[in-house]
Amino acid sequence: MTQNARAMGRPRDPQVDHRVAEAAVALFGEEGWSSFSIESVARRAGVGKASVYLRWSSKEQLLADALTQSLGRIEDVDTGTVRGDLVRLVRQLLELFTGEHADAALRLGLEARRTPGLAERYEAMAEAQILAARAMVHRGMDRGELPRDTSVTLLLDALCGGAMNHALATPARLRAELPKHAGEYAEALVDFILASVLTKA
Amino acid sequence: MTQNARAMGRPRDPQVDHRVAEAAVALFGEEGWSSFSIESVARRAGVGKASVYLRWSSKEQLLADALTQSLGRIEDVDTGTVRGDLVRLVRQLLELFTGEHADAALRLGLEARRTPGLAERYEAMAEAQILAARAMVHRGMDRGELPRDTSVTLLLDALCGGAMNHALATPARLRAELPKHAGEYAEALVDFILASVLTKA
Repeated sequence: MTQNARAMGRPRDPQVDHRVAEAAVALFGEEGWSSFSIESVARRAGVGKASVYLRWSSKEQLLADALTQSLGRIEDVDTGTVRGDLVRLVRQLLELFTGEHADAALRLGLEARRTPGLAERYEAMAEAQILAARAMVHRGMDRGELPRDTSVTLLLDALCGGAMNHALATPARLRAELPKHAGEYAEALVDFILASVLTKA
Repeated sequence: MTQNARAMGRPRDPQVDHRVAEAAVALFGEEGWSSFSIESVARRAGVGKASVYLRWSSKEQLLADALTQSLGRIEDVDTGTVRGDLVRLVRQLLELFTGEHADAALRLGLEARRTPGLAERYEAMAEAQILAARAMVHRGMDRGELPRDTSVTLLLDALCGGAMNHALATPARLRAELPKHAGEYAEALVDFILASVLTKA
Protein backbone atom coordinates (compact mmCIF):
# COMPACT_ATOMS: atom_id res chain seq x y z
CA MET A 1 0.00 0.00 0.00
CA THR A 2 1.44 3.43 -0.97
CA GLN A 3 1.47 6.51 1.22
CA ASN A 4 -0.88 7.96 -1.31
CA ALA A 5 -3.51 5.28 -0.96
CA ARG A 6 -3.31 5.61 2.80
CA ALA A 7 -3.85 9.34 2.60
CA MET A 8 -6.92 8.87 0.41
CA GLY A 9 -9.08 7.65 3.25
CA ARG A 10 -9.67 4.08 4.41
CA PRO A 11 -7.92 1.65 2.08
CA ARG A 12 -8.50 -2.00 2.90
CA ASP A 13 -5.88 -2.97 5.47
CA PRO A 14 -4.91 -6.66 5.33
CA GLN A 15 -3.97 -6.55 9.02
CA VAL A 16 -7.56 -5.79 9.94
CA ASP A 17 -8.66 -9.23 8.72
CA HIS A 18 -6.11 -10.83 10.98
CA ARG A 19 -7.00 -8.71 14.01
CA VAL A 20 -10.70 -9.38 13.56
CA ALA A 21 -10.11 -13.13 13.23
CA GLU A 22 -7.93 -13.20 16.35
CA ALA A 23 -10.56 -11.25 18.30
CA ALA A 24 -13.34 -13.56 17.10
CA VAL A 25 -11.53 -16.73 18.18
CA ALA A 26 -10.55 -15.26 21.56
CA LEU A 27 -14.07 -14.03 22.29
CA PHE A 28 -15.65 -17.32 21.25
CA GLY A 29 -13.16 -19.22 23.42
CA GLU A 30 -13.90 -17.09 26.47
CA GLU A 31 -17.64 -16.61 26.28
CA GLY A 32 -19.03 -18.98 23.68
CA TRP A 33 -21.60 -18.55 20.98
CA SER A 34 -24.41 -17.05 23.08
CA SER A 35 -22.43 -13.83 23.67
CA PHE A 36 -20.83 -13.72 20.23
CA SER A 37 -21.71 -10.72 18.08
CA ILE A 38 -20.10 -8.73 15.27
CA GLU A 39 -20.27 -5.70 17.54
CA SER A 40 -18.32 -7.31 20.37
CA VAL A 41 -15.72 -8.68 17.94
CA ALA A 42 -15.24 -5.24 16.35
CA ARG A 43 -14.88 -3.65 19.79
CA ARG A 44 -12.26 -6.17 20.85
CA ALA A 45 -10.34 -5.86 17.59
CA GLY A 46 -10.46 -2.07 17.85
CA VAL A 47 -12.07 -1.61 14.44
CA GLY A 48 -15.38 -0.18 13.32
CA LYS A 49 -18.42 -2.45 13.06
CA ALA A 50 -18.75 -1.39 9.42
CA SER A 51 -15.30 -2.75 8.51
CA VAL A 52 -16.32 -6.13 9.86
CA TYR A 53 -19.61 -6.15 7.93
CA LEU A 54 -17.65 -5.14 4.81
CA ARG A 55 -15.78 -8.43 5.01
CA TRP A 56 -18.27 -10.87 6.53
CA SER A 57 -21.99 -10.91 6.01
CA SER A 58 -22.89 -12.88 9.13
CA LYS A 59 -21.40 -13.74 12.50
CA GLU A 60 -21.54 -17.46 11.64
CA GLN A 61 -19.38 -16.84 8.55
CA LEU A 62 -16.96 -14.64 10.48
CA LEU A 63 -16.42 -17.21 13.23
CA ALA A 64 -16.16 -20.16 10.81
CA ASP A 65 -13.46 -18.29 8.81
CA ALA A 66 -11.62 -17.23 11.95
CA LEU A 67 -11.60 -20.79 13.34
CA THR A 68 -10.38 -22.18 10.01
CA GLN A 69 -7.46 -19.71 10.06
CA SER A 70 -6.57 -20.20 13.72
CA LEU A 71 -7.06 -23.86 14.56
CA GLY A 72 -4.43 -26.11 13.07
CA ARG A 73 -5.78 -28.92 10.97
CA ILE A 74 -4.95 -32.42 12.22
CA GLU A 75 -2.58 -33.98 9.67
CA ASP A 76 -1.69 -37.52 8.76
CA VAL A 77 2.03 -38.09 9.37
CA ASP A 78 3.80 -41.28 8.27
CA THR A 79 6.68 -41.93 10.67
CA GLY A 80 7.19 -45.56 9.66
CA THR A 81 5.51 -47.20 12.68
CA VAL A 82 1.96 -47.14 14.00
CA ARG A 83 3.24 -46.10 17.41
CA GLY A 84 5.15 -43.17 15.94
CA ASP A 85 2.16 -42.10 13.84
CA LEU A 86 -0.29 -42.20 16.75
CA VAL A 87 2.09 -40.32 19.03
CA ARG A 88 2.18 -37.56 16.39
CA LEU A 89 -1.62 -37.62 16.24
CA VAL A 90 -1.93 -37.24 20.03
CA ARG A 91 0.69 -34.46 20.07
CA GLN A 92 -1.30 -32.54 17.46
CA LEU A 93 -4.46 -32.99 19.53
CA LEU A 94 -2.72 -31.86 22.72
CA GLU A 95 -1.47 -28.77 20.89
CA LEU A 96 -5.04 -28.06 19.79
CA PHE A 97 -6.53 -28.57 23.26
CA THR A 98 -3.83 -26.85 25.32
CA GLY A 99 -2.47 -24.23 22.93
CA GLU A 100 -3.34 -20.57 22.46
CA HIS A 101 -6.76 -21.35 20.98
CA ALA A 102 -7.58 -24.30 23.25
CA ASP A 103 -10.81 -22.86 24.65
CA ALA A 104 -12.14 -22.16 21.17
CA ALA A 105 -11.23 -25.68 19.99
CA LEU A 106 -12.91 -27.33 22.99
CA ARG A 107 -15.95 -25.08 22.71
CA LEU A 108 -16.33 -25.87 19.03
CA GLY A 109 -16.96 -29.52 19.90
CA LEU A 110 -19.60 -28.54 22.43
CA GLU A 111 -21.40 -25.69 20.69
CA ALA A 112 -21.06 -26.45 17.00
CA ARG A 113 -23.98 -28.85 16.93
CA ARG A 114 -26.53 -26.21 17.88
CA THR A 115 -25.13 -23.58 15.51
CA PRO A 116 -25.74 -24.18 11.78
CA GLY A 117 -22.74 -22.27 10.35
CA LEU A 118 -20.37 -23.87 12.87
CA ALA A 119 -21.55 -27.45 12.53
CA GLU A 120 -19.85 -27.73 9.11
CA ARG A 121 -16.60 -26.31 10.48
CA TYR A 122 -16.67 -28.81 13.34
CA GLU A 123 -17.42 -31.68 11.02
CA ALA A 124 -14.46 -30.72 8.81
CA MET A 125 -12.22 -30.71 11.88
CA ALA A 126 -13.59 -34.06 13.07
CA GLU A 127 -13.24 -35.52 9.59
CA ALA A 128 -9.57 -34.56 9.38
CA GLN A 129 -9.00 -36.47 12.66
CA ILE A 130 -10.87 -39.50 11.39
CA LEU A 131 -9.04 -39.54 8.04
CA ALA A 132 -5.63 -39.19 9.72
CA ALA A 133 -6.37 -41.94 12.25
CA ARG A 134 -7.83 -44.23 9.59
CA ALA A 135 -4.74 -43.84 7.36
CA MET A 136 -2.46 -44.57 10.35
CA VAL A 137 -4.40 -47.69 11.34
CA HIS A 138 -4.45 -48.99 7.77
CA ARG A 139 -0.69 -48.53 7.39
CA GLY A 140 -0.29 -50.35 10.72
CA MET A 141 -2.35 -53.25 9.37
CA ASP A 142 -0.33 -53.33 6.13
CA ARG A 143 2.90 -53.48 8.15
CA GLY A 144 1.46 -56.33 10.24
CA GLU A 145 1.58 -54.26 13.43
CA LEU A 146 -2.18 -54.25 13.98
CA PRO A 147 -4.84 -56.93 13.55
CA ARG A 148 -7.03 -56.45 10.46
CA ASP A 149 -10.16 -55.94 12.55
CA THR A 150 -8.86 -53.05 14.69
CA SER A 151 -11.69 -50.56 15.26
CA VAL A 152 -10.74 -47.07 14.08
CA THR A 153 -13.74 -45.64 15.94
CA LEU A 154 -12.71 -47.04 19.31
CA LEU A 155 -9.06 -46.20 18.75
CA LEU A 156 -10.01 -42.63 17.90
CA ASP A 157 -12.42 -42.28 20.84
CA ALA A 158 -9.76 -43.50 23.25
CA LEU A 159 -6.93 -41.40 21.77
CA CYS A 160 -8.75 -38.14 20.98
CA GLY A 161 -10.94 -38.42 24.07
CA GLY A 162 -7.91 -39.28 26.19
CA ALA A 163 -6.05 -36.18 24.98
CA MET A 164 -9.14 -34.02 25.53
CA ASN A 165 -9.75 -35.45 29.00
CA HIS A 166 -6.12 -34.85 29.92
CA ALA A 167 -6.40 -31.18 28.88
CA LEU A 168 -9.75 -30.68 30.65
CA ALA A 169 -8.73 -32.46 33.85
CA THR A 170 -5.67 -30.27 34.33
CA PRO A 171 -6.43 -27.35 36.69
CA ALA A 172 -6.05 -23.89 35.13
CA ARG A 173 -2.97 -23.04 37.20
CA LEU A 174 -1.08 -26.09 35.86
CA ARG A 175 -2.19 -25.70 32.26
CA ALA A 176 0.76 -23.58 31.13
CA GLU A 177 2.99 -26.54 32.09
CA LEU A 178 1.12 -29.02 29.88
CA PRO A 179 3.01 -28.40 26.61
CA LYS A 180 6.32 -29.21 28.35
CA HIS A 181 5.13 -32.74 29.08
CA ALA A 182 3.04 -33.25 25.94
CA GLY A 183 5.54 -35.57 24.23
CA GLU A 184 5.92 -37.75 27.29
CA TYR A 185 2.18 -37.93 27.88
CA ALA A 186 1.44 -38.71 24.21
CA GLU A 187 3.86 -41.67 24.29
CA ALA A 188 2.39 -42.97 27.55
CA LEU A 189 -1.20 -42.73 26.29
CA VAL A 190 -0.40 -44.45 22.98
CA ASP A 191 1.57 -47.22 24.70
CA PHE A 192 -1.26 -47.70 27.17
CA ILE A 193 -3.86 -47.99 24.44
CA LEU A 194 -1.75 -50.17 22.17
CA ALA A 195 -0.68 -52.58 24.89
CA SER A 196 -2.97 -54.86 26.83
CA VAL A 197 -3.37 -53.96 30.47
CA LEU A 198 -4.90 -57.31 31.28
CA THR A 199 -2.55 -59.86 32.76
CA LYS A 200 -2.03 -62.65 30.21
CA ALA A 201 -3.76 -65.80 31.42
CA MET B 1 -49.47 -26.81 52.72
CA THR B 2 -53.00 -25.97 53.84
CA GLN B 3 -55.47 -23.96 51.84
CA ASN B 4 -55.23 -21.47 54.66
CA ALA B 5 -51.49 -20.95 54.28
CA ARG B 6 -51.93 -20.54 50.54
CA ALA B 7 -54.61 -17.93 51.07
CA MET B 8 -52.35 -15.97 53.40
CA GLY B 9 -50.08 -14.77 50.63
CA ARG B 10 -46.87 -16.32 49.30
CA PRO B 11 -45.85 -19.24 51.50
CA ARG B 12 -42.58 -20.88 50.49
CA ASP B 13 -43.40 -23.43 47.81
CA PRO B 14 -40.99 -26.38 47.75
CA GLN B 15 -41.72 -26.89 44.06
CA VAL B 16 -40.25 -23.50 43.26
CA ASP B 17 -36.79 -24.71 44.33
CA HIS B 18 -37.05 -27.59 41.91
CA ARG B 19 -38.34 -25.46 39.03
CA VAL B 20 -35.60 -22.90 39.53
CA ALA B 21 -32.91 -25.61 39.64
CA GLU B 22 -34.24 -27.21 36.45
CA ALA B 23 -34.31 -23.83 34.69
CA ALA B 24 -30.78 -23.03 35.84
CA VAL B 25 -29.32 -26.31 34.52
CA ALA B 26 -31.19 -26.03 31.20
CA LEU B 27 -30.11 -22.43 30.66
CA PHE B 28 -26.50 -23.17 31.54
CA GLY B 29 -26.51 -26.17 29.19
CA GLU B 30 -27.87 -24.14 26.29
CA GLU B 31 -26.01 -20.86 26.62
CA GLY B 32 -23.23 -21.30 29.13
CA TRP B 33 -21.97 -19.12 31.93
CA SER B 34 -21.58 -15.87 29.97
CA SER B 35 -25.35 -15.52 29.53
CA PHE B 36 -26.28 -16.93 32.92
CA SER B 37 -28.12 -14.55 35.27
CA ILE B 38 -30.59 -14.84 38.16
CA GLU B 39 -32.99 -12.77 36.07
CA SER B 40 -32.94 -15.16 33.09
CA VAL B 41 -33.31 -18.20 35.36
CA ALA B 42 -36.31 -16.64 37.13
CA ARG B 43 -37.91 -15.78 33.78
CA ARG B 44 -37.46 -19.32 32.49
CA ALA B 45 -38.76 -20.87 35.71
CA GLY B 46 -41.75 -18.53 35.67
CA VAL B 47 -41.05 -17.16 39.14
CA GLY B 48 -40.20 -13.70 40.44
CA LYS B 49 -36.57 -12.61 40.66
CA ALA B 50 -37.12 -11.93 44.37
CA SER B 51 -38.06 -15.57 45.09
CA VAL B 52 -34.76 -16.66 43.58
CA TYR B 53 -32.73 -14.14 45.60
CA LEU B 54 -34.63 -15.29 48.71
CA ARG B 55 -33.09 -18.74 48.27
CA TRP B 56 -29.70 -18.09 46.68
CA SER B 57 -27.42 -15.14 47.31
CA SER B 58 -25.40 -15.42 44.10
CA LYS B 59 -25.70 -16.95 40.65
CA GLU B 60 -22.59 -19.08 41.30
CA GLN B 61 -24.28 -20.62 44.34
CA LEU B 62 -27.55 -21.16 42.48
CA LEU B 63 -25.89 -22.95 39.59
CA ALA B 64 -23.61 -25.04 41.81
CA ASP B 65 -26.64 -26.21 43.84
CA ALA B 66 -28.68 -26.90 40.71
CA LEU B 67 -25.88 -28.94 39.12
CA THR B 68 -25.38 -30.93 42.33
CA GLN B 69 -29.11 -31.81 42.33
CA SER B 70 -29.34 -32.62 38.63
CA LEU B 71 -26.13 -34.34 37.59
CA GLY B 72 -25.84 -37.87 38.88
CA ARG B 73 -22.70 -38.59 40.85
CA ILE B 74 -20.42 -41.25 39.34
CA GLU B 75 -20.49 -44.22 41.72
CA ASP B 76 -18.14 -47.09 42.39
CA VAL B 77 -19.93 -50.36 41.65
CA ASP B 78 -18.36 -53.74 42.50
CA THR B 79 -19.62 -56.30 39.96
CA GLY B 80 -16.97 -58.92 40.75
CA THR B 81 -14.75 -58.36 37.70
CA VAL B 82 -12.72 -55.39 36.49
CA ARG B 83 -14.43 -55.62 33.10
CA GLY B 84 -17.88 -55.48 34.68
CA ASP B 85 -16.89 -52.58 36.94
CA LEU B 86 -15.44 -50.50 34.09
CA VAL B 87 -18.46 -51.17 31.86
CA ARG B 88 -20.65 -49.76 34.65
CA LEU B 89 -18.34 -46.75 34.92
CA VAL B 90 -18.56 -46.06 31.16
CA ARG B 91 -22.35 -46.52 31.22
CA GLN B 92 -22.65 -43.94 33.98
CA LEU B 93 -20.47 -41.54 32.00
CA LEU B 94 -22.52 -42.09 28.83
CA GLU B 95 -25.70 -41.37 30.80
CA LEU B 96 -24.11 -38.15 32.05
CA PHE B 97 -22.91 -37.06 28.59
CA THR B 98 -25.96 -38.09 26.56
CA GLY B 99 -28.80 -37.75 29.09
CA GLU B 100 -31.21 -34.91 29.77
CA HIS B 101 -28.51 -32.72 31.31
CA ALA B 102 -25.73 -33.68 28.90
CA ASP B 103 -25.00 -30.15 27.69
CA ALA B 104 -24.68 -28.87 31.24
CA ALA B 105 -22.36 -31.76 32.18
CA LEU B 106 -20.12 -31.20 29.14
CA ARG B 107 -20.10 -27.44 29.64
CA LEU B 108 -19.14 -27.82 33.28
CA GLY B 109 -15.86 -29.43 32.21
CA LEU B 110 -15.16 -26.58 29.82
CA GLU B 111 -16.32 -23.54 31.78
CA ALA B 112 -15.80 -24.49 35.42
CA ARG B 113 -12.15 -23.56 35.44
CA ARG B 114 -12.77 -19.90 34.74
CA THR B 115 -15.68 -19.58 37.21
CA PRO B 116 -14.72 -19.68 40.91
CA GLY B 117 -17.99 -21.06 42.35
CA LEU B 118 -18.18 -23.75 39.67
CA ALA B 119 -14.59 -24.94 39.83
CA GLU B 120 -15.28 -26.66 43.18
CA ARG B 121 -18.38 -28.37 41.79
CA TYR B 122 -16.41 -29.63 38.79
CA GLU B 123 -13.57 -30.83 40.96
CA ALA B 124 -16.03 -32.79 43.14
CA MET B 125 -17.47 -34.42 40.00
CA ALA B 126 -13.99 -35.22 38.65
CA GLU B 127 -12.91 -36.56 42.04
CA ALA B 128 -15.86 -38.96 42.19
CA GLN B 129 -14.77 -40.36 38.79
CA ILE B 130 -11.17 -40.71 39.92
CA LEU B 131 -12.12 -42.40 43.21
CA ALA B 132 -14.49 -44.84 41.45
CA ALA B 133 -11.90 -45.73 38.79
CA ARG B 134 -9.12 -46.07 41.34
CA ALA B 135 -11.20 -48.44 43.50
CA MET B 136 -12.05 -50.54 40.41
CA VAL B 137 -8.43 -50.77 39.29
CA HIS B 138 -7.24 -51.70 42.78
CA ARG B 139 -9.84 -54.46 43.07
CA GLY B 140 -8.72 -55.66 39.62
CA MET B 141 -5.12 -55.82 40.87
CA ASP B 142 -6.14 -57.67 44.02
CA ARG B 143 -8.00 -60.24 41.92
CA GLY B 144 -4.93 -60.67 39.71
CA GLU B 145 -6.75 -59.33 36.65
CA LEU B 146 -4.54 -56.27 36.20
CA PRO B 147 -0.80 -55.75 36.57
CA ARG B 148 0.19 -53.88 39.74
CA ASP B 149 1.58 -50.94 37.77
CA THR B 150 -1.57 -50.15 35.77
CA SER B 151 -1.90 -46.36 35.43
CA VAL B 152 -5.24 -45.13 36.79
CA THR B 153 -4.67 -41.76 35.11
CA LEU B 154 -4.25 -43.23 31.63
CA LEU B 155 -7.09 -45.70 32.12
CA LEU B 156 -9.38 -42.88 33.21
CA ASP B 157 -8.31 -40.55 30.38
CA ALA B 158 -8.98 -43.28 27.81
CA LEU B 159 -12.32 -44.39 29.33
CA CYS B 160 -13.82 -41.05 30.37
CA GLY B 161 -12.39 -39.28 27.35
CA GLY B 162 -13.56 -42.10 25.08
CA ALA B 163 -17.13 -41.83 26.41
CA MET B 164 -17.06 -38.02 26.08
CA ASN B 165 -15.64 -38.18 22.55
CA HIS B 166 -18.32 -40.68 21.56
CA ALA B 167 -21.06 -38.36 22.83
CA LEU B 168 -19.53 -35.26 21.19
CA ALA B 169 -18.81 -36.95 17.87
CA THR B 170 -22.40 -38.08 17.43
CA PRO B 171 -24.36 -35.61 15.28
CA ALA B 172 -27.32 -33.95 17.05
CA ARG B 173 -29.89 -35.80 14.93
CA LEU B 174 -28.54 -39.21 16.04
CA ARG B 175 -28.07 -38.29 19.67
CA ALA B 176 -31.48 -39.50 20.84
CA GLU B 177 -30.47 -42.97 19.64
CA LEU B 178 -27.30 -43.07 21.73
CA PRO B 179 -28.80 -44.42 24.99
CA LYS B 180 -30.16 -47.47 23.10
CA HIS B 181 -26.65 -48.56 22.19
CA ALA B 182 -24.91 -47.36 25.35
CA GLY B 183 -24.47 -50.83 26.84
CA GLU B 184 -23.03 -52.26 23.66
CA TYR B 185 -20.68 -49.31 23.17
CA ALA B 186 -19.51 -49.40 26.81
CA GLU B 187 -18.56 -53.08 26.48
CA ALA B 188 -16.75 -52.49 23.19
CA LEU B 189 -14.77 -49.52 24.58
CA VAL B 190 -13.77 -51.38 27.74
CA ASP B 191 -12.76 -54.49 25.80
CA PHE B 192 -10.76 -52.36 23.39
CA ILE B 193 -8.91 -50.61 26.19
CA LEU B 194 -8.33 -53.73 28.27
CA ALA B 195 -7.11 -55.85 25.39
CA SER B 196 -3.98 -55.23 23.37
CA VAL B 197 -4.56 -54.20 19.78
CA LEU B 198 -0.97 -54.86 18.83
CA THR B 199 -0.34 -58.19 17.11
CA LYS B 200 1.69 -60.34 19.48
CA ALA B 201 5.21 -60.72 18.13
